[in-house]
Amino acid sequence: MSLRVVFLGTAASIPTDARALPSVVVRRKNELLMFDCGEGVQRQMVRARVGFHKRMRVFVSHMHGDHVLGLPGLLQSMSLLDRRLKLEVYGPVGIRAFVEAIRRTVQFVLTFPVEIHEISKSGIVCDEKEYYVEAVRTSHVVPSFGYALVEKPRLGRFDPKKAEALSVPEGPLWSKLQHGKSVKNAVGRLVKPRQVVGPLRPGLKIAYSGDTRPKRSLGKLARGADLLVHEATLMDELVDRARRDGHSTPSQAAEIAKKAGVKRLILTHVSARYRDVQAMLREARKVFPRTDVAEDFLTFELAPIEA
Amino acid sequence: MSLRVVFLGTAASIPTDARALPSVVVRRKNELLMFDCGEGVQRQMVRARVGFHKRMRVFVSHMHGDHVLGLPGLLQSMSLLDRRLKLEVYGPVGIRAFVEAIRRTVQFVLTFPVEIHEISKSGIVCDEKEYYVEAVRTSHVVPSFGYALVEKPRLGRFDPKKAEALSVPEGPLWSKLQHGKSVKNAVGRLVKPRQVVGPLRPGLKIAYSGDTRPKRSLGKLARGADLLVHEATLMDELVDRARRDGHSTPSQAAEIAKKAGVKRLILTHVSARYRDVQAMLREARKVFPRTDVAEDFLTFELAPIEA
Repeated sequence: MSLRVVFLGTAASIPTDARALPSVVVRRKNELLMFDCGEGVQRQMVRARVGFHKRMRVFVSHMHGDHVLGLPGLLQSMSLLDRRLKLEVYGPVGIRAFVEAIRRTVQFVLTFPVEIHEISKSGIVCDEKEYYVEAVRTSHVVPSFGYALVEKPRLGRFDPKKAEALSVPEGPLWSKLQHGKSVKNAVGRLVKPRQVVGPLRPGLKIAYSGDTRPKRSLGKLARGADLLVHEATLMDELVDRARRDGHSTPSQAAEIAKKAGVKRLILTHVSARYRDVQAMLREARKVFPRTDVAEDFLTFELAPIEA
Repeated sequence: MSLRVVFLGTAASIPTDARALPSVVVRRKNELLMFDCGEGVQRQMVRARVGFHKRMRVFVSHMHGDHVLGLPGLLQSMSLLDRRLKLEVYGPVGIRAFVEAIRRTVQFVLTFPVEIHEISKSGIVCDEKEYYVEAVRTSHVVPSFGYALVEKPRLGRFDPKKAEALSVPEGPLWSKLQHGKSVKNAVGRLVKPRQVVGPLRPGLKIAYSGDTRPKRSLGKLARGADLLVHEATLMDELVDRARRDGHSTPSQAAEIAKKAGVKRLILTHVSARYRDVQAMLREARKVFPRTDVAEDFLTFELAPIEA
């Protein structure tokens, strides 16, 4: 099991030649989980070939246009392509009025249901069988949330050879053992799960900051994550400006990553003033070496390390 | 005097790798006149380096998202860049509600006035000292307009040598002659304007179809234009589909160009199904040889032929 992470847009506020407006999409099995949805996201999806017909959830960090204005065009194009599957949209209070206003004032016929979940406080906003998504209030100039996608641990690996050696016949008893119940074997002796089943296999975890000043609660949310995607709009020399505008610097993002003990940090939401990100990387890596700066279409697979 | 024409987006409905959503911008002196405003237009403007601080008017052909969803992000980015100049927006009834809904539901502070002109019938919608813009009802699946930018003729060229030879002293008499009034020269003889002033210098004319079935009134609007930008969404073999969806084919667009006696035709709004436009070009050129198919960032200067 792995997660495919694709950065569709990595700019801050205003797009550049090289960077589209913010959006990161995570493909999990046949589902897309998108974090922020900047203008132009549908074209970036075309370019990245992620598809318009998959199960999909969109998590919006805040209601600034550069994070949400890709949604209307996405709804229109999905409808033109005759999507039928429900799309679920999560975001701060106000996102429902935005989507409804677009549906009222732009002419198109939606071919699929859009379910909107307005978020007003930190907590789990989406709880599925195999994963959940938790939101946490962040600190921007308007109400804002960061998100973590957390895969639930999978059952341990069952060892059929050991089960046979312990005289447990194949069938319902194997399933009971794998689900944590002790059983009696063919000769009436008790066999415990840990004799034939490996440890729980942990899932993957990705945290996404959205736009925010450095925020302790986000660090808590990201604890132990396989990947933290954190904004770093302005460099350290502009830390006062960053604080005023509700943003972070590379070393602030790196501090969050370090305290949270994440495995990897990727900086995004890069101001148009930085054409070359080497200096930005240096600032962050001083604090947290396993840092990279995203660019549009950066794509990688995140896979769990199996014991 | 010339007009600079830049195709910012040339796709139909859904963007592709190569084509952004529809928008053509005409630069006239220090003003931008934009025809349609598809999602992503602000990024295309960055790429084409047309600037966010100029005098600007936006003419929207109809209220489908692919023609209007670039406007919200444009307003937001112009505000982030602290634009002060008024932006004027023209479009079918409904465009005011759209812009107001965006301002209500997306969080940003507009730093400049936006003046919205809703159009409900054919006629001149903008009448400036040096040019006017005329709208004409077209035939799409929702209310739609085509537009023509028409430069007013400039005064004829004044020949100072001829004036001197006719003993008209430099000063207010020269101005009177140039503005069409006869004057008396130094020895009391009548001098007529045509003796010293060339013929009126005609301005340029550009017509833009928006999305439409072939429409005679659009041909009338385009009469004698230096450039007709006409949609050609689907090729001739799909003419029934084109009619049903409110679109034109290459040879239909070429017929309009031919009847209107335009100097040049550029086809745009090209369906994603056509990667190679050679066949499309052939269809159109059979009817009207001076045809090209637009691609994104196609840019040229249109200059009047001076006598």
